[in-house]
Formats: sequence, structure tokens, C-alpha cells
Amino acid sequence: MPTITFRPDNLAATAEDGEALTTVAARAGVPLRSDCGGQGACRKCAVTLQAGGLRDRAGAPLAPDPDGEVLACQAVVAGDATIAVPEESRAADLTPLAKTLGHVAERLAAHGVAEPLAMRRCLRIDPPAKGDSLADVDRIFDALRTADPHLRRLSADLPTLRALPTVLRQSGWNVCTTIVDGPDASGLANVSLACDIGRAMFGVAVDIGTSTVAVSLVRLDTGRVVAAAGKRNGQIRYGDDVISRIIWTEEHDGGLEMMRAAVVETLNEVIREACEAVGIPTSDVLALTVAANSTMMNFLLGIPSGPIRRDPHTPPASWLPLFTAGELGLDAWSRAPVMCLPTVSGFVGADITAGVLATGMAEAEGLTVLVDVGTNGEIVVGMEGMLVCASCSAGPAFEGVGIECGMHGAPGAIEGVAYDAAADQVAIEVIGRKPPQGICGTGFIDLLASLFQAGALDRGARFQRDFPTARLRVGEHDETEFVVAFAGEHGATRDLAVRQSDIENLVRSKAAVHAGISMLLGKLHLAPEMIEQLHLAGGFGSRLDVRRAVQIGLLPDLPPERVAYVGNTALAGAHLCLVSREARERVRALAAAMTYIELSVEPGFMEEYVASMFLPHTQTERFPSVVRAATG
Amino acid sequence: MPTITFRPDNLAATAEDGEALTTVAARAGVPLRSDCGGQGACRKCAVTLQAGGLRDRAGAPLAPDPDGEVLACQAVVAGDATIAVPEESRAADLTPLAKTLGHVAERLAAHGVAEPLAMRRCLRIDPPAKGDSLADVDRIFDALRTADPHLRRLSADLPTLRALPTVLRQSGWNVCTTIVDGPDASGLANVSLACDIGRAMFGVAVDIGTSTVAVSLVRLDTGRVVAAAGKRNGQIRYGDDVISRIIWTEEHDGGLEMMRAAVVETLNEVIREACEAVGIPTSDVLALTVAANSTMMNFLLGIPSGPIRRDPHTPPASWLPLFTAGELGLDAWSRAPVMCLPTVSGFVGADITAGVLATGMAEAEGLTVLVDVGTNGEIVVGMEGMLVCASCSAGPAFEGVGIECGMHGAPGAIEGVAYDAAADQVAIEVIGRKPPQGICGTGFIDLLASLFQAGALDRGARFQRDFPTARLRVGEHDETEFVVAFAGEHGATRDLAVRQSDIENLVRSKAAVHAGISMLLGKLHLAPEMIEQLHLAGGFGSRLDVRRAVQIGLLPDLPPERVAYVGNTALAGAHLCLVSREARERVRALAAAMTYIELSVEPGFMEEYVASMFLPHTQTERFPSVVRAATG
Repeated sequence: MPTITFRPDNLAATAEDGEALTTVAARAGVPLRSDCGGQGACRKCAVTLQAGGLRDRAGAPLAPDPDGEVLACQAVVAGDATIAVPEESRAADLTPLAKTLGHVAERLAAHGVAEPLAMRRCLRIDPPAKGDSLADVDRIFDALRTADPHLRRLSADLPTLRALPTVLRQSGWNVCTTIVDGPDASGLANVSLACDIGRAMFGVAVDIGTSTVAVSLVRLDTGRVVAAAGKRNGQIRYGDDVISRIIWTEEHDGGLEMMRAAVVETLNEVIREACEAVGIPTSDVLALTVAANSTMMNFLLGIPSGPIRRDPHTPPASWLPLFTAGELGLDAWSRAPVMCLPTVSGFVGADITAGVLATGMAEAEGLTVLVDVGTNGEIVVGMEGMLVCASCSAGPAFEGVGIECGMHGAPGAIEGVAYDAAADQVAIEVIGRKPPQGICGTGFIDLLASLFQAGALDRGARFQRDFPTARLRVGEHDETEFVVAFAGEHGATRDLAVRQSDIENLVRSKAAVHAGISMLLGKLHLAPEMIEQLHLAGGFGSRLDVRRAVQIGLLPDLPPERVAYVGNTALAGAHLCLVSREARERVRALAAAMTYIELSVEPGFMEEYVASMFLPHTQTERFPSVVRAATG
Repeated sequence: MPTITFRPDNLAATAEDGEALTTVAARAGVPLRSDCGGQGACRKCAVTLQAGGLRDRAGAPLAPDPDGEVLACQAVVAGDATIAVPEESRAADLTPLAKTLGHVAERLAAHGVAEPLAMRRCLRIDPPAKGDSLADVDRIFDALRTADPHLRRLSADLPTLRALPTVLRQSGWNVCTTIVDGPDASGLANVSLACDIGRAMFGVAVDIGTSTVAVSLVRLDTGRVVAAAGKRNGQIRYGDDVISRIIWTEEHDGGLEMMRAAVVETLNEVIREACEAVGIPTSDVLALTVAANSTMMNFLLGIPSGPIRRDPHTPPASWLPLFTAGELGLDAWSRAPVMCLPTVSGFVGADITAGVLATGMAEAEGLTVLVDVGTNGEIVVGMEGMLVCASCSAGPAFEGVGIECGMHGAPGAIEGVAYDAAADQVAIEVIGRKPPQGICGTGFIDLLASLFQAGALDRGARFQRDFPTARLRVGEHDETEFVVAFAGEHGATRDLAVRQSDIENLVRSKAAVHAGISMLLGKLHLAPEMIEQLHLAGGFGSRLDVRRAVQIGLLPDLPPERVAYVGNTALAGAHLCLVSREARERVRALAAAMTYIELSVEPGFMEEYVASMFLPHTQTERFPSVVRAATG
């Protein structure tokens, strides 16, 4: 198979002759721009051929233009080649779901791509000499240990042992092995034989949210994401939130199995989508890591979750063993190990331990807070190595679920809104610069803040019917609604409007998150202004206007530089575990160190929640910057 | 279920109401005599009822006789009972295959029944209190660690995790777990849930010989053998020795799978036989350990063995991971772990490492030799911690294979022979005091020695046609034969005769063994008279007359007290591994410490072999005691 090497990164991928160069580049971890959709019109994917040759799609040799460049979108592979990719031809983040790539890169620099959960290693072994009675499998183990001194204890399973004597001799002692992590922390690694020498190795990091399933396809040798994909969780047809889904499984014969099948189906669709994007078969996925909230993790594994919804909300397991893709029905190499990240409690799951890992907050000095706004809101407070966590029932509004024009942070979602009351115009930013199809979490934050600031919403988050605008109207069910984009405006194909009930939904969410933060800090006798760093995580957009999030009272009133929107940290933590043994060991230690506090039984929680239902809060003195902006 | 306790041992077994008391006694590890076959005639099974009640087979309460005794063979269970078993009512060794029980008992005293390969532990767990978010599986792990502090790292598989939340709550937090060893030396143990609280736990130790498959059924709590069974290896239809079987698998499509199926079928038959003897279902077998020569081990696992028969005789694996009974198709609990003992080389297998473990020879001071006479002969020399081993092609003659009247050491086999030339009478001892059906290895040793001493065989092991006896005759194919028992004599149903070709077969075997011992000692510059202890192992009888074995030149001329017939040490070593973690770790260390010497390439081997084809040897000066006996 030809090998294509991309400079200056020195990332390489094997390819089929005739394969599109853009696909190979993505697989190598160097995604290219494709502003015109591969039509050869925009010239944004120009690269330089440094060695070897390329052909055009008709099969003719591809000649460089006068600048010495070729358009990658017009080129197909014709043998080995070396391609230089200028900075301006590179695609930015693959999708908003992979927003935290930069963050992961930083953490990877700390943890290193070392001992990924699985790896391929091809060996040329000396055949046994006369009088040498060393067993075949020990000969392979010795060769692997020589190549990788950290591979201390190795094991092989029955299919491998059965294949070994024949494969070794038929291949002329030239074999490819796959090495996967053994049982948790046993230090044991399992060796399998693979016959397809030279293939690259990939892993999939998974985040199963109640609303959205997201994956990153990662090259296990470089640690780089080569594709990302996300999709609405197919379990939504059985209920919007975890509690209603648990009840559904309990009230339907075979309900748990249907629930399991639904998420496996969604997950397999996104795995296939990511693999297709870079032209690899799903059998090249050699390892998976999964972050998910406790109930989603149980559903993936087919474990009953009834106890989670009943006091004391006991999860079945905090720790989980390594599974195989085959055992879980996942579309990957059937023996690929599947690491499910550890859980803290029934309502603080592996998505949060992954987030603590990915943000590095346990290593930070000073008070650090992680707020993950998903279908539930989870909060982790870290200070001087202490980690305390809690959960609040935020609901899925910020993920766009339960809101007519809501959607998750995918291309086509309005992620930024600015309402100019004087002109009665709404400026929007859409992910992927496409026509708007709906509004995602960050868009709603901007919208609430804009409307409140303009006076279209009062402090009780009620639309002011006398506010002078053509965008407020009475819609279905006699409900007041605000039109963000009329059909035709910004290319919208229909009116995108937010109703009074949608606003209430969003406010309940933000109130739950804010009350959770306040209660947890109060419980620890810490004041919000002591927070040195607040990580806001979640898959609800690709950018967050911190000032706006404070204006609506979602977050405490902190200077913007102390708040970072860190995207999907669950996915980022899973990604780290895929490529670093140190990360896998670290996340287990973090989960064990996290103390769970049950907020709902804390006195004063309901009062704080009700006070937080106002914009920004009943106690405006807690939001001096908002007061200053309004009066200033 | 009623529990029957046997005194003074304090061994107990649960039983069904109406179950035969003798079956329950066997299951508890207290086998009773049954000289009349359970007819109530011999009164050898008299026991005393100390508490509780028994019924007769018709269901009436069983009244003790005037001595206060009841006949166990007439009694069935009727609720809990305590039974005192006098020494004279106990059965001796279960079968000759379990001859080494005493030996194992001694080693067990050293290793202890500690951390068997699997164990059941029933738990009553405190349900979670309000605010306690400890996960279900961690609650079980904590309870197990409290009960067994050595259980450090625990794991649970997917079926267990799926069952856990429901079983825990439906059982009222009162569950039975099975704990099995995790992957080799990982220190990890896997926990499963079992619903059948109160059942005893059993394991099976297996020895797969080329000719015979033998098992011991062992109670995992007490370490005692409760039943034993053995059977001709069903693979014999594909060839008598390992080389011919390897060739057969190579020359037939699907041959390896047929070979595998044949031994699995035999093994499952003996497992079922042993379980039926003590009235347990095979699903109560929670763990298995397997000793076997390298080729038999490969065949059991379905691993191709071709390289073993070709220079340099490379085995596929010396170390083997834990398998499950289900994966290997064995008739036991499907998740029962199967430990295959480690192998040294293609011709020194797990049967020999098991033997080194069971005899404790590695810990002995002075020169110690283990000679295992099976279908191959293997020799291990130990001195001051050094272990050197070799193999010689003895052939299966001493196991009765390839000899018309030969059989393995099972009930009905003539195991002792004394020929009185003056009276022309042959006195015989038969295993199980039954009518003779054939002759086993120790019987052949006696026979050769007797005939040689009487002058019926010359030093070249040829029958002397002019020897005055009615027992020498010309049989089929004009071949001279000696009748050990005529039909009707000793209850024989047919003439049991040994032919000249049988004698030659046996002499080739003894020559190979003797030449092997001589060569290996010579290679190490050690003289036979330096041997302080020689362990003669093998399943060829239940008793060995050392003097006779020296007379025919099977063994070097050592004082009888330095030679011990230790029976089936492969089975004994497997038994130890079943019930002791220390033994499992020890046997792996022993295998790694053993150095294999390939005798066939040593100069002088063929000369030594040919010289050993005489009775006792061409160099009679090596056998001074034999010369003294002949001349004295």
C-alpha cells in the first residue's frame, strides 16, 4: 500500500491507489479546508507535492500549477508521496463537538501519547535455532519486550494461541501483533495476531449524553483526532431525561434491552460516520473509551438502573472492568477493549470524572470549579487536592431538547445571537456558516441576555407584550413568542421563534445550575468570588459569551478571564484515556477521590433554586457587574 | 437442604431428602466401604447416628441395631444428621489413580488449602443507608474483603454486573458469590453471583496422558478428593503415541478439531463419572486444573502441534492463560476457570512440572530424580535447586497399550505377579480384588523379573523354549507366549498370555527409560549411586516392587528405600494447584527454572539404549545387587 506523508507534521497514512487525497489527509490527522465542497473552485486546499506523484480523478498525472501547488480536492493517490500542507490550507476544528482538541493537546503534552489502550506492532522475529526450545508465544513476547521495555507482563488468548504456530511459519516469522490493555490495573497486556501488516491504528473516544452521542476518531500512534461525529441519542424516543427513561425500562417488558439497543444503534451510526469520513473500515478501530453519565453507562451495558432513581440513588458499579466491542455489540474490531470511565455516584458519572481529568482541575492551585451543563448539570469543586461534587436537575433545555426550535451544537445551529432593539434586528452566528436550522445552548444564553437587556423580558423572564418590536407575536396555543429569524431571513427556511414556555424551560435550567453552584460552595463555606477558574463544559455550542452567561445568572458574577468554555470535556477525557495509560490510571484515582454531596436534601436548596429563577437572581447584589451594566 | 455432618472429621455435605447416605458421605470426602456392593450383607459400612434421623429405602425411620449402628448402604437422608464413621468402615484409596492422595495430603499440609482456584462465599450485606452512594458491586467487594483480607483486587464480568442490582434487592441483600482467579499472576479475582446458596464447591484436577485420561474430583473447601475416575484416551483411535497423532492431524482435513473433540469427549465422560459417584451436577464443578504432556495440552486447546515433531521441537506456548470451561467445551460450570499447568518444552510437559511440584523434589537436599513412565518417559534431575530434564521415547507398553493382554492400572488389572517355577504356578494380585481382565505396568515388571529369574527368559529377553513349564506355548502367528492365567484360573474369563513381541515391547520401554536416566546423569557428571531419592511416577499400577524394577534394569541399582513409587504425580500436582495459590505460583516458577536437554542428539545415546535392551543390562557390573541375588 502507498504511504502518503504530510509535512511539516510528518504525519503519514497508508492509502489505496486512487483514493482521494483529502480522505487520506484526514486519516493522517491533517484535515484540509473544503470551503467549496471539493469543487476545485475555492483553492483553499492547495498543497505542495514534495516527492512522489498524484493523479487527477480521471487518472491522468496531476501537474503542479505555476506556484508549484496542487489542489488536494482534485488529487488521488498514485503511489508513495510527500505533501507539504501550508497553515492556511488546514481545516480548523473538525466540528464543535471536538472543540476541546486544543485542550486535549495540552493535556496530552502533560500525559504523553504513551501506552494507548491498544496498539499494533509489527515484528520480524528470528526463527528458532537448533536446540532452542523457546515456545512460539514466548518468542513473540520477548520480541515485543525488546521493542517496548514497558511491556512487562503479556498474555495471549485462545484464538491467538491457536493461530500462532501456523501464522508464524507461513509468514516467515514476520507478523503483526495488536497489544491491548489487560484487566484494570493488572499491568497485563493481551497480544493478538493480525495479518494486515501496515495498517494504521485507530481508537474511538465516546461521550454518551442523555441527549447527544458524540465520538472522536483518534489515531492511536499520534493521539490526534482525525474525525468527529455526533448524533441525537436514539433513546430520546423513550424519554427526554434519565429518570423518565429508567421508568420506561421498568414499565416495559424487555425495555432495558430496547434501551440498550437504541444507544448501541446510535453509537454505531456515529462510529461508522467518523470512519467513513477518513476512509477506514470500522474493524480498524482497535480500542474505545466511553464517558457517560451513570444511567447512560448502565443502558449501554444493559445493567438495570432502577436503584439510581430511588433513594439513596445507588449506582450498580463505580468501577467497571474492560469489556470488548464484540461483547457490547459495538461496530469495531470485535476484540477491541472498551474502557468505561469510572463513576462517582448515581448522578455524577464518568462524563464528570472525564471532565476533571481533561481540565486538569485536580492539579490546579486555588479554588477551581467545573460546571458541566448537559441534561443534568454537574458541579465539581476542587481546592488543594480536595474534590467535592454534586448534581442538579438542569434538564436538557440548553442541549436544545424540549424546545421547538432547539438543537444541539452542530452545523446549522445558531450559536450566537445579538438583538439590536433600535433596529429590531437580530444578528446571528451559525455553526459551519450554514443557513440556520435551530438554536443551540450558547445561542439561547445570548438571546436571553439580549432580550433581558433590551427590556423585552422582565426580571421574572416574562415577555413584555408592550415591547416595541415586530418580532413578538402570539403564536400557537395563544402563547407569546419572539421570532429570532423569520423564514427567508439569514436563509432560514421557516420562522425560528422562542416561546414563553421555552424561556421558562431555559430559566429553570439556568436556575438549577446556579443554585447548584451556590449550594455546593456554601456547603463548603466558600464564596463564589473566591473561584479562580471556572470551567464551563457541555456540548451546547462552540463559543460562549461569559458576560452573557453572567447577565442571565447562569454563572456567578466572575471576571470573564476567570471563566473558560471548555466544550465537551467528557469526550476530551475519554480521548486522553484512549492514548495514555497514565490518564487511565489517573481517572480511576480521581473518581475514587471525589466526594459526592446530595444537594436535594440540603436545607435551603429549594429557596435558592426559586431565587435563581429570576434574571439574574432575586439578590441582585450578588451580580454587581450586571447591575453596573444596567445602570451604567 | 439437609446437612449431613461426618465425625470425627467434621466434614459435611448438603443433601437431598431421600438421597443415599453413601453418596452423601463420598461427596463430603468420607468414602465408605461397600464390599458387598450395597446389599446390606457385609456390614462393612456400619456407622453410628449421633444426631438427627435417617430412613431406610422404603421411607421408614431407620432404627439402630443393638450396637447402636446403622448400615450406611441401607440409609437415606431424612433431614439434618450427624454420623460417626469408624476407621474400619472407611474405604481406602478411591482408585489406584488417586494413589498419591497421601502424598498430596502431605504437600497440602505444606501449601495449605488457601485461595483455591475458585470458591463460593455467601454474604449477608447491609443494605445502603440514606445518603450512602457506595455502588452495589463495591458493597459486595467490601464485604468479601472483610471476610477474606487476602482478596485484594476484585473484578466482576458483564453478566454479573447485569444481574447485580436485581439479585441483591430480590434476595434481601443475601447473596452467594463465586470468586475465581483472574488472569495469571495478576492478583485479580473475578466475582460472580450464584443463586444456589449453600451448595458445596468442587473442582476437578485432570491428567491427560497419551493413553489415559484421569481426574480427581476435589472439594475446594477441604482439599479432599471425593471421587476419581479414569478412562482410555479416545484419541488412541488416531494413533498410539504423540508423533503418530500429530501426523494424523496434519494429514486429515479438520483433523486437529477431531483430535480436540476426542479428548474433550473422554474428559467429559470421566468428569461426569466422578460427579455421578458423589451425586452432584457437573455445574457444581467450579474450577479445573490440567496437567498433560505438551502435545495432549495442545490437542485439548485445539492448537496445532506440528512444530513439536520437527526439529527444534518448538512448543506453541510454555505458559498458558486461564481459560474457561465453556470456552474449552468442558462439562462444568461454563465460567469455571481452567488452569493449564506450564510446559517446559515440546517433550517435557505440564505433567512433569506438576510432578516436580507434587514430589517437592525442588526443595529436597541431595540428588533427587523423578522418572515418569507414561507413553513417553520423562526424567527430571534435581540437586541444590538446579532442575534439568529430558525425555525418552519409552512407548506406551507399561500403560498396557500395544500389548494384547495389557491394560492400565484400573480395577481388574493384574498389578502383581509371582511365578513359582517349581510348582509352575503364577500368584497374582488384582486391583480391586476382581477377576483378572489384563495386566498393568507393575504386573509386567514383576512378570519380566520372575521369568528372568526363573530362567524362562534369557538376558536377551527371549523365551527359552526348552524351559520346563506348561505355560509356554506357541500361539497365534507361530509366536511363543507365556500364559499368566488360563481361562478359569483366578476367575479369568480367557487365557491371559504374554507374547515374545510383547516382551520386546516392554524391554524397549525399560531400555529407553534406563538409557535416559543414565545419559542425563552422565551429562551432568553424576553417578546413579549418588541418587538419594528416586520418585517413580506413572499411572501403571498401584504398587511397585522396587527390587523387581531393578532386576529388569528399568531403574538403576539403588537400595529399595531410596526409591518410591509415587503414582500419578501429574494428577497430584494438578490437585495441589486447584486448592492452593502458592502451588499455582510455585509450579510456574518451577517450569521457568527447568532446563531441557535434548537426549537424542547426545553422543552415545544409541549405544546406551542398545546396552539397556538386555536384562538387566550388558554391563552387569552396574547391577551388583542383581548379580548377588543370582549368584548368592
